[in-house]
Amino acid sequence: MTSQQHLKFFTNPQSVALVGVSSRTGPGTFNVLEQMLRTGFKGRIYPVNPKGGSIMGLPVYRTVEEINDPVDLVIITTPRTAVPAVVKQCVAKGIKAIIIITQGFSDAGDEAGVLMHREILEAVRGTGTSIVGPNTLGVVNNFQSFNTAFLSFTTSTSPLGIICQSGIFLAASEDFCGGMGIGIDIGNTSDIGFAECLAYMGQDPRIKVINLHIEGLRDGRLFMETARQVTPHKPVLAVKTGSSEAGARAASSHSGSLAGEDAVFSAALAQSGIIRVENAALLAELNQTFITYREMRGKRIGCITISGGAGVMAVDACSKHGLEIAKLSPATEKALAGVFPVWMKVSNPADIWPAGMARGYRDVLSMVLEKMLSDHGVDAVLCISPAYLAPQRDDPLNIIDTVTDIARRYPHKPTAAWIFGPHKRQYAEQFRRREAVVAYDSPENAAFCLAQLYRYHNIIRDREYTPFHPPQGIDRAKAAFVLDAGRRAGLTALNEEALDILEAYGIPAAQRGLAGTAEEARRLAEEIGFPVVMKIASPDITHKSDAGGVKLNIYDGDMAAGAFREIMGNARQHVPGARIRGVLVQSQVPGGIEVILGGKKDPQFGPVLVYGLGGIFTEIIRDVAFRVAPVTHREAREMIEETKSYQVLAGARGREPGNIDALVDCLVRLGALLYDHPEIAEVDINPLLVQPNGCVALDARIIPAFSA
Amino acid sequence: MTSQQHLKFFTNPQSVALVGVSSRTGPGTFNVLEQMLRTGFKGRIYPVNPKGGSIMGLPVYRTVEEINDPVDLVIITTPRTAVPAVVKQCVAKGIKAIIIITQGFSDAGDEAGVLMHREILEAVRGTGTSIVGPNTLGVVNNFQSFNTAFLSFTTSTSPLGIICQSGIFLAASEDFCGGMGIGIDIGNTSDIGFAECLAYMGQDPRIKVINLHIEGLRDGRLFMETARQVTPHKPVLAVKTGSSEAGARAASSHSGSLAGEDAVFSAALAQSGIIRVENAALLAELNQTFITYREMRGKRIGCITISGGAGVMAVDACSKHGLEIAKLSPATEKALAGVFPVWMKVSNPADIWPAGMARGYRDVLSMVLEKMLSDHGVDAVLCISPAYLAPQRDDPLNIIDTVTDIARRYPHKPTAAWIFGPHKRQYAEQFRRREAVVAYDSPENAAFCLAQLYRYHNIIRDREYTPFHPPQGIDRAKAAFVLDAGRRAGLTALNEEALDILEAYGIPAAQRGLAGTAEEARRLAEEIGFPVVMKIASPDITHKSDAGGVKLNIYDGDMAAGAFREIMGNARQHVPGARIRGVLVQSQVPGGIEVILGGKKDPQFGPVLVYGLGGIFTEIIRDVAFRVAPVTHREAREMIEETKSYQVLAGARGREPGNIDALVDCLVRLGALLYDHPEIAEVDINPLLVQPNGCVALDARIIPAFSA
Repeated sequence: MTSQQHLKFFTNPQSVALVGVSSRTGPGTFNVLEQMLRTGFKGRIYPVNPKGGSIMGLPVYRTVEEINDPVDLVIITTPRTAVPAVVKQCVAKGIKAIIIITQGFSDAGDEAGVLMHREILEAVRGTGTSIVGPNTLGVVNNFQSFNTAFLSFTTSTSPLGIICQSGIFLAASEDFCGGMGIGIDIGNTSDIGFAECLAYMGQDPRIKVINLHIEGLRDGRLFMETARQVTPHKPVLAVKTGSSEAGARAASSHSGSLAGEDAVFSAALAQSGIIRVENAALLAELNQTFITYREMRGKRIGCITISGGAGVMAVDACSKHGLEIAKLSPATEKALAGVFPVWMKVSNPADIWPAGMARGYRDVLSMVLEKMLSDHGVDAVLCISPAYLAPQRDDPLNIIDTVTDIARRYPHKPTAAWIFGPHKRQYAEQFRRREAVVAYDSPENAAFCLAQLYRYHNIIRDREYTPFHPPQGIDRAKAAFVLDAGRRAGLTALNEEALDILEAYGIPAAQRGLAGTAEEARRLAEEIGFPVVMKIASPDITHKSDAGGVKLNIYDGDMAAGAFREIMGNARQHVPGARIRGVLVQSQVPGGIEVILGGKKDPQFGPVLVYGLGGIFTEIIRDVAFRVAPVTHREAREMIEETKSYQVLAGARGREPGNIDALVDCLVRLGALLYDHPEIAEVDINPLLVQPNGCVALDARIIPAFSA
Repeated sequence: MTSQQHLKFFTNPQSVALVGVSSRTGPGTFNVLEQMLRTGFKGRIYPVNPKGGSIMGLPVYRTVEEINDPVDLVIITTPRTAVPAVVKQCVAKGIKAIIIITQGFSDAGDEAGVLMHREILEAVRGTGTSIVGPNTLGVVNNFQSFNTAFLSFTTSTSPLGIICQSGIFLAASEDFCGGMGIGIDIGNTSDIGFAECLAYMGQDPRIKVINLHIEGLRDGRLFMETARQVTPHKPVLAVKTGSSEAGARAASSHSGSLAGEDAVFSAALAQSGIIRVENAALLAELNQTFITYREMRGKRIGCITISGGAGVMAVDACSKHGLEIAKLSPATEKALAGVFPVWMKVSNPADIWPAGMARGYRDVLSMVLEKMLSDHGVDAVLCISPAYLAPQRDDPLNIIDTVTDIARRYPHKPTAAWIFGPHKRQYAEQFRRREAVVAYDSPENAAFCLAQLYRYHNIIRDREYTPFHPPQGIDRAKAAFVLDAGRRAGLTALNEEALDILEAYGIPAAQRGLAGTAEEARRLAEEIGFPVVMKIASPDITHKSDAGGVKLNIYDGDMAAGAFREIMGNARQHVPGARIRGVLVQSQVPGGIEVILGGKKDPQFGPVLVYGLGGIFTEIIRDVAFRVAPVTHREAREMIEETKSYQVLAGARGREPGNIDALVDCLVRLGALLYDHPEIAEVDINPLLVQPNGCVALDARIIPAFSA
């Protein structure tokens, strides 16, 4: 049975058993049965309680086994210590779906909770039984009037799917998300998690938009794979909480989530086509945006305003979110000039107040809106109008019907509104009911939402995620051999060998050789060509410079031979007993821009790539980009371009630009290496020199993960 | 008469003449008289219209002169071409206050508007007549039921003063600011501007908080001086619009405002103790914060939550805004452990749901809130609770009275609330009426507002702005002499001379001298000490390196003499006919961290200082700090510390730290130079070397403002 089929038992059960239901009802008793009846659930309900008797007119069963009819879903609200036994009874009875509402498992501060959670997982492993929870409000399906929560709350039905790790996104879905169709609180995930619910909601035609509230993920890779199936045809918006260090600690004690680096999370969401929403307060308006507007082809905004000052605010907001203020066509300008006072220059934002005073506000607004929407240089229009009074027919400033009628005739261009004033919420509600225009709470929110709409329809939608094709010219056998040799030698870090491994993956490294004698050093240096650098090669000497183990600017053979003796002497003196492999003689490559390429393992997503400009850019500004590995050429290029230091590579201020194609190729190859070799815990290429004609790695280190 | 006395004629007139009032009334007519009567103005009203007759039962005067009684305020709504004549009549009659509502002056796209505005300014110059506007809604004084706007709107009275450049902040004050006491729309300022209104509201005891909506300033210095009188005893919050480039263009066509660099504006506001609010949507909650809470002594937040997930969101928000999550005292922890389930670890945020289920939500909340507020390690408490249902007495989750009662007993520590759910606005309104707790719309907003409250009470309040005392050891005569010499020579930039001027202000510069012959170069180099650098000195050669005019690493006298000849030869060859003053011989200073110090003129604030780390930090990351000059030592230090690159100077990652005291001193001295010499348009010290034992300027340039 697929998880899709499985999830129907959770969201649309025909019969439900409530284990641990109390006989107390009314405010403060938080009785699931009472709430379920209030919601109007149409299926059969079997209360279960060892005391028996009856509750709210329904006969009570002492155990799940006692129920003779088929049960689709069991909801458990017993004290935590009773839960494992109930789960085992359910498995024995062949129950497909269990919701464990009870708290105190991996969310608890004690070991017993963790152990009981493990016991529950063991009980269902390999059986046909799936679990939502524990520590959950469960499931709400507003299409079917089904709700497993023990709280009273009101919520409107909307074509929205919610998958969350906190029940507040169900109970307060109206506030956070602007309504709900189906909501699943996965709580402290057992087996039904984000991926399963996302796949299910991706298939449900009643759901137009999906919202995720994520504290942490168990299997980041599976999640990404699932998301990539869904996002090309349905917008998925995610609020990731626990993004701060303090927040991550709080999240870990709430849902037992692992916290990876927040920037890695952002990268993984973007790589999956998920729109990350930093501030949950923006979700509701963003959902309404995706539900209301079917597309947005460009980002040139026309702006109609009752107030010059408000127009300025809207322009600031558009600039901030990457939208452009449209250049109106001569025809549009001429039409506007026909109604504007002679002294007023037509511009965008178009301040229609003086014209409106003279010729009627609504008439002027209609004309200008119509002209802007039919202007080929305008992709969306923002109307700024006030709600000084409550919406009433005879208020000349009430433009709800006027704007709605025109918007409906231009369904391919969003007509948005920013309504300000004490009655703006009533205006927003009236616009909402008409389903053609979103009235935003502020120009900031309008610009943010339209920018996301643009991004979805122009960057995310219809994106095809092609499987990763490793680049040509990889010598896997050589890389594996070197890694394996390091493992067998018990090395905690590969230094000189790291460049060999990178070369096996096609990443160019500086020409070099290992000299065992002074004469060998001389010969190697002459082969490589001067100048060379020479470095001690020893698994036991990490800080080579400090041990006098590095010499730069070696210009001839005598200097090379001398340097060999000096380095060996220094090394023996500074680190007596160190295993010394010789002295590395390496071409001293001139010029180029130093960048850092790295790889590490994220607890949620596995191998990730890191890129940044060398030096203080990476160390102090943290101007780095992450991607879950492996990456395509496009992803690698985006990675480079999203750093602020990109301008340096691109040749800012008269600098010689670096070869970005070659850098992209190195990133792709490094990603392939990380992906192929889970036994690598960490890689650092520092620096990789990006030159006009290619890249060359000068120094690298690989730290193996021996536990793998 | 002071502007304070003057402004009373605007905000609290006893008699008002309405010039240009129409006889048409009702929706769409925008009749000032009708609105004024509706608002309940108690003074005398004299409608003026050349047609005479009567309007709304009041006799109409044909001209202002015809009115025989004294008139405090004249409001003009005639077409723009009639305005200058009316203003002249008002001046002739000795009217003290005029509001020009009419549009189409410096806001207009045509020259006629600008000329008429100038005519109006001329008409009142040197008279006792002041003007608010043109292009304004005028003045609202809710304390006195006085309103000059032609629009219908509703607004509640609150101890808030609003000074704005767009009428929407008056008409929609409820939405933007959460109510209003006195509001003045200065429009396209004539003579009453921000400074005058700010001084007036600073003195009015009914006003507790002041809001500014600024598109641009005419006299930034006067504004700053006035603000510094007000902000130590009254919070002033500013929304600056036109902050983006596109927005600045829009602002300039709306209010005719000059746009300086936005970062300079931010610096000037901060230097005046004004809190800049980036997003106008946050103003209302921030005002309520300042009105409700009398102080906040630290930034350690206790957090009580019904939901672990919501607690995580609150922690993220606090971290983002620089607040800390309080470490609870052992006594508090013990008290909480007494009601929490045994399996649950007590922590902050305190998730009280499991305890509340067992012992009653309100009782547990009361106890925990009381304990946190009396904990010496907690400076403010955020209560997170839901509004799933409309507030009703018997809902066990309704905590309005409970929280309010406790909050009133701890007036020195803010008790804040984040109420989520579909009925949160009703909760917020009920909290608001009780005047003890602010219920914020989101955890983001709560954290933002509390962080500003903390900042006001700990950094801005009671701050004394001491007059600037120039540092010791400034040779003004020498600096003036060199500047004057440059002016007389008609130089467009001072290069070699710039270091002399800086030295006169006590900024150390590299030892140097000008050589006219090869032998002089040798002698100078020997005096200075090797190594030296040598550079062509010519007002006609800007790109010295390109002209072969720079030599580094000169280690002895022969090299110096040779370099002289070479540089002179190159210069003559590359720039034939250039005026050559000789060759500059300068000490080649080793080591240190390169920073850039600059100065320029902002159109609104005059001389400003710029500071940044050298190289790509300043060029590409724009990691720079601005301050209006001159600056105190404290301001100079804050300037350095606010850059990201500060860590580099402070010795990050094992670097040798620079002497920050010496750098501070250089900034203060450069500020004094800019302040003393308005004839300087631009200064650049690039680089200034910050060494462990001091600073030294290596190269500088001064561009004079010959127009000054």
